[in-house]
Amino acid sequence: MSFQKLDESCRRLEALEHAMAILGADEATHMAPGGGEKRAEAMSTLAGMYHRQATAPEMGDWLAAAAEEALDDEQRAAVRELRRQYTNMTCLPPEFVERQTKARLRSEQLWRDLRAKNDWSSFLPALEGIVTLVREEAAMRAEVLGLEPYDALMEQYDPGNRVAEIGPIFEDLKVFLGGFVPEALAVQEERLSKSSLKPLSGVYPVEKQRELGLAMMAAVGFDLTHGSLSVSHHPFCGGVPTDVRITTRYRTTEFLSALMGVLHETGHALYEQNLPKGWSHWPLGKARGMSMHESQSLFVEKQIGRNPAFWRWALPMVERHLGESWSAEDILPHVLHVERGLIRVDADEVTYPLHVILRFEVEQDLLAGRLEASDIPEAWDAKMRDYLGLSTIDNPQDGPMQDVHWPSGAFGYFPSYTLGALMAAQQWAAIQRAHPSIEDDFAKGDFEAVNDWRRKNIWSLGSMWSTPELLQKATGEPLTAKYFEAHLKSRYGR
Amino acid sequence: MSFQKLDESCRRLEALEHAMAILGADEATHMAPGGGEKRAEAMSTLAGMYHRQATAPEMGDWLAAAAEEALDDEQRAAVRELRRQYTNMTCLPPEFVERQTKARLRSEQLWRDLRAKNDWSSFLPALEGIVTLVREEAAMRAEVLGLEPYDALMEQYDPGNRVAEIGPIFEDLKVFLGGFVPEALAVQEERLSKSSLKPLSGVYPVEKQRELGLAMMAAVGFDLTHGSLSVSHHPFCGGVPTDVRITTRYRTTEFLSALMGVLHETGHALYEQNLPKGWSHWPLGKARGMSMHESQSLFVEKQIGRNPAFWRWALPMVERHLGESWSAEDILPHVLHVERGLIRVDADEVTYPLHVILRFEVEQDLLAGRLEASDIPEAWDAKMRDYLGLSTIDNPQDGPMQDVHWPSGAFGYFPSYTLGALMAAQQWAAIQRAHPSIEDDFAKGDFEAVNDWRRKNIWSLGSMWSTPELLQKATGEPLTAKYFEAHLKSRYGR
Ligand SMILES: [Zn+2]
Ligand SMILES: [Zn+2]
Repeated sequence: MSFQKLDESCRRLEALEHAMAILGADEATHMAPGGGEKRAEAMSTLAGMYHRQATAPEMGDWLAAAAEEALDDEQRAAVRELRRQYTNMTCLPPEFVERQTKARLRSEQLWRDLRAKNDWSSFLPALEGIVTLVREEAAMRAEVLGLEPYDALMEQYDPGNRVAEIGPIFEDLKVFLGGFVPEALAVQEERLSKSSLKPLSGVYPVEKQRELGLAMMAAVGFDLTHGSLSVSHHPFCGGVPTDVRITTRYRTTEFLSALMGVLHETGHALYEQNLPKGWSHWPLGKARGMSMHESQSLFVEKQIGRNPAFWRWALPMVERHLGESWSAEDILPHVLHVERGLIRVDADEVTYPLHVILRFEVEQDLLAGRLEASDIPEAWDAKMRDYLGLSTIDNPQDGPMQDVHWPSGAFGYFPSYTLGALMAAQQWAAIQRAHPSIEDDFAKGDFEAVNDWRRKNIWSLGSMWSTPELLQKATGEPLTAKYFEAHLKSRYGR
Repeated sequence: MSFQKLDESCRRLEALEHAMAILGADEATHMAPGGGEKRAEAMSTLAGMYHRQATAPEMGDWLAAAAEEALDDEQRAAVRELRRQYTNMTCLPPEFVERQTKARLRSEQLWRDLRAKNDWSSFLPALEGIVTLVREEAAMRAEVLGLEPYDALMEQYDPGNRVAEIGPIFEDLKVFLGGFVPEALAVQEERLSKSSLKPLSGVYPVEKQRELGLAMMAAVGFDLTHGSLSVSHHPFCGGVPTDVRITTRYRTTEFLSALMGVLHETGHALYEQNLPKGWSHWPLGKARGMSMHESQSLFVEKQIGRNPAFWRWALPMVERHLGESWSAEDILPHVLHVERGLIRVDADEVTYPLHVILRFEVEQDLLAGRLEASDIPEAWDAKMRDYLGLSTIDNPQDGPMQDVHWPSGAFGYFPSYTLGALMAAQQWAAIQRAHPSIEDDFAKGDFEAVNDWRRKNIWSLGSMWSTPELLQKATGEPLTAKYFEAHLKSRYGR
């Protein structure tokens, strides 16, 4: 039976994925500094094995044959998602993939070097090559998938997301934020003028911050028997669903950023730990996509972790672990600080979407040929001044050179971040309708209801539905910005 | 060119080995407790992939064709060792391997349970099955390799070791120890009667012991940019040559056993870290075998780490890290303590070989059919009383049930431990001939000369020579017990 063959093949692929996931997490946390070269060699060989097995011609034959077999609903969905993976992995000719992989590696290396030197013009030729390749890639993917080019790129990260739907929502959000960012800043200004702000600085030993982080992780639902917290230079959530590795980095002068990082990665981890176990070897058993994943991390970081009700419970816990007493009035201005800035990853939840919308617009223009790589600095600067009143024209390092995505050829990924924020707010609204007093739970450190809802409506469903379907089924509505806007208004508005 | 094909295949095998080695070390050190089941699944799938690739029929074809190709010496040696691995991995029919693997797993699980209950008779049927299988295995290996059955088993661990050579040497050693163990105990008794022994107990925080261990590792040559020290329940040396993972376990009441464990594993690590890098993907580039590996760990633990000259340098270091001052007179009786005991892994270097010789003799009798599994307790007890004056007849848990080797079907492995001790002493004698004042180096914490000798004569040669050839080339003599006996006499004798 062909389904059986697919199933066995998936178990072998799962073992390779397991190895790569643990080796990846190990590399960032426990690997000896001199172990990198051999590790890279091993990883690339394992990735090659994975690719060869996942794209083998017999996979295509089995997929075709399995479509004719008598399968139950679950098996049919497994075949559908496997087919999706197979198509996404085989729709580009190997010759092209090889050429693109080399160009991406070279451009990424160059970027690391030239970003530090703030040198846009030396980087430009590499980026031009990347843009040419991504245009080719999008055209080929579009052809195979029957989608618009930009949609075909997004399809790799979030099945079902389409510019036709997202575009107007982002447009709506951009207009809203055009008025709301100044309002939020004015409100903040007023509040701060009334009382002096207690600075965040103090002395917080790493070991104590770590204990606080572990306690918070456990409280919001992280299963410490199936995961752990380590230190790495860039925080991440990796590993496998039965052993989720999250990391943070500490500063001993300040505890809030490490803690918020832990909460964010815990959100990713909850999704992974609660995926359907019986499907773990199938693509069907994986998290739905990047934007849904981000909605889960942002949910824990923003809807829970920056909620004033949460801090009623969290402050005594901070005091127990760090020995310092903060009042809500002292900590909340830090937790909810808003500021126009140049750097996306440092942005607060109010201004963050503008960074994403800027990139979303530039990417579409690049793909459509309305813009060339050489036009980016001016286009970027014009939008940056328009949306956030800041200029980066002489500072490409903190402008179009700030992210690794373009140098590494990952176009169509940026929208995921803001889609995640919108979806988190939309899920939060649905949960509040079902549990009107849910914030009282937070104030008691009780996250059961909120996790039960997410387990039932998101986590346990794996990749059963496309991203828009999953959101619609969970919240009863298609994607909208209105809950996110309402969330910002209630938290930061007048 | 077939050699090219073999070479590429070896690079794929190296990546799988890399993954399994790091996953294995990770499992014992950093894995979440609930991650074990999926990890075991992944490991067994990866091991299956490795086996399938390493034993693929085309490997046999390439090996045959490569033998006809124009190769340089290095490549010829690479093919020879690859052929050895291929033969060892293919000489048993797959049906047999499957049957044996299942029996071993079942017997090992049973043993874990029944050893704790001191229940020999319930375990006996499983062991009888294992013995039957190992007799079959040895016969098949012997047939293919043209060796005696026990030699064919040892060949898996140490190419070239033969009972015809080892047997008489062990016999000689047994006779020597029959007289020497009582002498060493009497000498110890006399010394202790003259002064009271400072007990080892104290309070030694784990973090400080760890720092001491790291400092000692670095001093004796461990490259901390290509390896690390962690904690695990059973100490081991794992990982890959570019990232060697060693572990120990700590007791906060006593520092010597963790430190000695660190030195032992550091000995294994030095071998791994100094293997020829360009051959790392070939069997030729691996450490020669189990007894040579153990000679390297024992060298660091015994020849260096229990050397009174070493302690002249080490004691101030212990004091710096642990804040406690020990005199040589206080610490050496602990470092060189001799005691007749039931448990092999707890034995000192004087009595240890008797534990091994007992097992070596019983294994040969079992294999030859002179003994059945049901006869083991009596045979064990008779030898134990004869060699060490102790009885375990009512205590199988601390007698024939103490080791995992037999339950897991690893017959022919035990000699490696004592061969390692003999070879370490023989290497040490050769080094002392070349560097008569080498112990003065130790007293200064200088291990360069001793490491240079071992790098040149052992480490850098990988698997270029069989075990006896390697020893002969390094020391100018075939294996002998005389240096080990002389070492014991000078350290523990009258
Ligand atoms: Zn995230
Ligand atoms: Zn050892």
